[in-house]
Amino acid sequence: MEKRILLTECTDDVGLIAKITNVCSLFHLNVTRQDQFASPEDHKFFMRTVIEGDFSNDKTVKTFIDTVISLLPQGANVRLADEHRRRLCVLVTKESHCLGELLMKTYSGALNADIVCVAGNHPDLGALAEKFNVPFKLVSCEGITKEEQEKRMIEVIDSTNCDYVILAKYMRILSPEFVGHYPLGKIINIHHSFLPAFIGAKPYHQAYNRGVKLIGATAHFVTNNLDEGPIIEQDVIKVNHRYDPETLAKAGHDVEQMVLIRAISKVLDDKVFIHGNKTVVF
Amino acid sequence: MEKRILLTECTDDVGLIAKITNVCSLFHLNVTRQDQFASPEDHKFFMRTVIEGDFSNDKTVKTFIDTVISLLPQGANVRLADEHRRRLCVLVTKESHCLGELLMKTYSGALNADIVCVAGNHPDLGALAEKFNVPFKLVSCEGITKEEQEKRMIEVIDSTNCDYVILAKYMRILSPEFVGHYPLGKIINIHHSFLPAFIGAKPYHQAYNRGVKLIGATAHFVTNNLDEGPIIEQDVIKVNHRYDPETLAKAGHDVEQMVLIRAISKVLDDKVFIHGNKTVVF
Amino acid sequence: MEKRILLTECTDDVGLIAKITNVCSLFHLNVTRQDQFASPEDHKFFMRTVIEGDFSNDKTVKTFIDTVISLLPQGANVRLADEHRRRLCVLVTKESHCLGELLMKTYSGALNADIVCVAGNHPDLGALAEKFNVPFKLVSCEGITKEEQEKRMIEVIDSTNCDYVILAKYMRILSPEFVGHYPLGKIINIHHSFLPAFIGAKPYHQAYNRGVKLIGATAHFVTNNLDEGPIIEQDVIKVNHRYDPETLAKAGHDVEQMVLIRAISKVLDDKVFIHGNKTVVF
Amino acid sequence: MEKRILLTECTDDVGLIAKITNVCSLFHLNVTRQDQFASPEDHKFFMRTVIEGDFSNDKTVKTFIDTVISLLPQGANVRLADEHRRRLCVLVTKESHCLGELLMKTYSGALNADIVCVAGNHPDLGALAEKFNVPFKLVSCEGITKEEQEKRMIEVIDSTNCDYVILAKYMRILSPEFVGHYPLGKIINIHHSFLPAFIGAKPYHQAYNRGVKLIGATAHFVTNNLDEGPIIEQDVIKVNHRYDPETLAKAGHDVEQMVLIRAISKVLDDKVFIHGNKTVVF
Repeated sequence: MEKRILLTECTDDVGLIAKITNVCSLFHLNVTRQDQFASPEDHKFFMRTVIEGDFSNDKTVKTFIDTVISLLPQGANVRLADEHRRRLCVLVTKESHCLGELLMKTYSGALNADIVCVAGNHPDLGALAEKFNVPFKLVSCEGITKEEQEKRMIEVIDSTNCDYVILAKYMRILSPEFVGHYPLGKIINIHHSFLPAFIGAKPYHQAYNRGVKLIGATAHFVTNNLDEGPIIEQDVIKVNHRYDPETLAKAGHDVEQMVLIRAISKVLDDKVFIHGNKTVVF
Repeated sequence: MEKRILLTECTDDVGLIAKITNVCSLFHLNVTRQDQFASPEDHKFFMRTVIEGDFSNDKTVKTFIDTVISLLPQGANVRLADEHRRRLCVLVTKESHCLGELLMKTYSGALNADIVCVAGNHPDLGALAEKFNVPFKLVSCEGITKEEQEKRMIEVIDSTNCDYVILAKYMRILSPEFVGHYPLGKIINIHHSFLPAFIGAKPYHQAYNRGVKLIGATAHFVTNNLDEGPIIEQDVIKVNHRYDPETLAKAGHDVEQMVLIRAISKVLDDKVFIHGNKTVVF
Repeated sequence: MEKRILLTECTDDVGLIAKITNVCSLFHLNVTRQDQFASPEDHKFFMRTVIEGDFSNDKTVKTFIDTVISLLPQGANVRLADEHRRRLCVLVTKESHCLGELLMKTYSGALNADIVCVAGNHPDLGALAEKFNVPFKLVSCEGITKEEQEKRMIEVIDSTNCDYVILAKYMRILSPEFVGHYPLGKIINIHHSFLPAFIGAKPYHQAYNRGVKLIGATAHFVTNNLDEGPIIEQDVIKVNHRYDPETLAKAGHDVEQMVLIRAISKVLDDKVFIHGNKTVVF
Repeated sequence: MEKRILLTECTDDVGLIAKITNVCSLFHLNVTRQDQFASPEDHKFFMRTVIEGDFSNDKTVKTFIDTVISLLPQGANVRLADEHRRRLCVLVTKESHCLGELLMKTYSGALNADIVCVAGNHPDLGALAEKFNVPFKLVSCEGITKEEQEKRMIEVIDSTNCDYVILAKYMRILSPEFVGHYPLGKIINIHHSFLPAFIGAKPYHQAYNRGVKLIGATAHFVTNNLDEGPIIEQDVIKVNHRYDPETLAKAGHDVEQMVLIRAISKVLDDKVFIHGNKTVVF
């Protein structure tokens, strides 16, 4: 008995759950967990169904999915998450905490994925990646245009055949061309603030100057609107007047790495749907 | 179009979701939200289905439920939560914070229920209940046996025709006879600690002596095992060495009232199933 | 033995703690708790000293304070918090949760203050205030200019001889004239978001549209920069895609009332200093 | 201008702060931060004073400390935290998350200390330590008595000249002889639960069986009472009915590593005093 995850997205309609689960029954697939959300706002339907059964016959599997699609409203997006171990390409600059946690969690198996490449615009984190036998690619910005640097970075990323690009404190603003090169949902960023507060640069200085009592972090999918992509996960930590920008950043780093790992973990479990500029996270 | 909630509990089996949602379709009931859990441990199945349709014909509704039951494994527990506004009977002693919050949240409508009676073993909170035009019954322990006092309290409770008995800091240990007089799930208690820590009396003194850095509260259904009933909701608040038992209790009260309200709110929404000594909370 | 709190604010300098504690010793005043903060940024010094001793002779007390001042840098602000029970004037509109919690916490004694007046621009909360025998003043905006309404509100407030004005969901933007009529630190507001996110109106709709995973609240002193005054306390609560603006608001209300009470509690304990646009909270 | 930290512990008395700060003034040492706590329960006084000045003359420094001691009650414990970079010896078994985080945080500099040795009763984590050029010592339990294994472990620890022994998921119960070999405050443990709940083995199974809604972790100093030493730091994370013992443990690991790092960070900053079976954490 194998286990697979069926992911369904379509316009909401009467009887969708019945239809989908019926098809599962018909194909002798047992539903062990089902999560569903229908947005009252725009009548979109999202469902994640964990099914157990025999998936050895590719033709049968294809027929199963085609049958599901045939019963759903026009434009439905249905897929069976395949079982390959996901491949992460991690982009970094100089700060090590997010990369370090990613390396540790994949090393220990807590995160069910492989880091296939670390690419940095600075060489600082090469030694760390190499400790874990992960290849490091330097794609420096020095002496070349932003366009050229991005072109080289895209080449590096695309050569890795990765499933997700993780911006683990990659301190470069991506051009619309770069972002547009990848499907929505492939690039995940960790933002050093509780978005939408402190959008932009130096959020810890902004937080210090504002005198906030909480410091946050936000993991989100990347879109062309800087810091405005669909939020996957957020958390905060308490701070007080004794924190300066440096100690705020240190406290913030702990939240950042935790939030990033939680977000990636949810994505790897196929629990995250993109819904316009938001997410549905089961 | 009315909205109702279908609650299903039974032994887990293949195809349960399909069967139930099919019956809904058959009766022209649209599923707008569905939450499901199958316990891998003991193979129990729980499902909460929000359905929309016409429930005006009692006979049709009965047939609908009978049909669902007929398709499920032996011993299934299926019910359609009726729509009456729930009635709460609140038991208190001297501390006002939980009762106060219950009165405020029902007054404002944030909690969708009516407090039909406050009963106390001390007269202290009578004036507060009466501010909100809620009848207060004094069931003193003075000069009578525990057995006799409980008998009187049961009479008071039973005369109110209430749906839930809320122990809002009722500082009496209930006898097995008292607890056994009510079905499991009818009595909800707020315990002044993060259970299972600090079971029993004077938890804030226990917490002080242990030097903990967090203070918690637990809302749970009451069973005959004191402080051991199924947990509905828990939360904590940070404290430090400057807190003494009195200020710990003050901080704890804020968590207690918040946790109790959240738990009752979930119960009133029919989102809580009892699963052995645990709960499933959707 | 009486207990008092000595509050000191001045330019930072070498030996300030020694000077102040020496004067305490000289006057036979025992220091039981001392909290101090020197801002590395602008070299301001803040100290809160709890002292025990005999304060019965007004002349001696005056000499004590004068002696402290004489030893501190020019422009020092030194005061002995007097012991009178603080008087709160609470401004409201229609939402009851913050007023309700204030009434409950002063009623129970958890908040060491008296609500001497509730003033609203709508009559809705009059009945609630009167349950607790607190006078309610209606200062309607209907048929009069904003200027005139604010003039009347100021008259109401000033007639109460209150120590603090609490904006407990008072949904009016105050004019600079209104704000300027009171010393900085006298007006406390609860803002329905984790500032600086979602400044302005309809924060729960803003939060919904942005798809955030946390909802917050901020208690702050009021200045002429709307939503920009010194922050006293903030907290958040987790939410998810199932929340709509209405349920977000409901979740937010719980955080709002908790954050407001915590902030007022700190202010009543004389633990909050204003430091430019920030606070020092001991 | 050097910065040092003066740590004072003694019986509480009138005028202690004045006396200590006076001596600082006398020796031209500027106090930049002072935290103080007097326990109302047993009249113990704790003070942490950050001082700036010239500490180059050892004889003057000694006289300074002797002068402070001479003015305090009998039995005072006064010390000037020296500035050497602290040395950590980390004991492990098989789980990598706490060791991994310690290696990362010392590598990045977020934790101001050196891991001088990792010692394990299993060989599993040797490869990880060695990635960071930290020597790993295997002290197996196989084929030898507990007494002999502990003797060998003590030899390893003592040969490292470490300041602190960190039990980073070292799954052995230490004998009183082992614990007694080190001064109280030298050994720090991370316990996989919110103590005092779920003392002892298999806390995640215990938590699962109890159906708790929060999972916690506790960092504490080790004493001869297992799981009963002074608590330094605690935190929790929300869980629900979908978690099984394995996913509870995974969630718990994130809290464990965060709580352990925070506790060690406080200890390295000399912000933690032991007060009987509790701590004072500034």
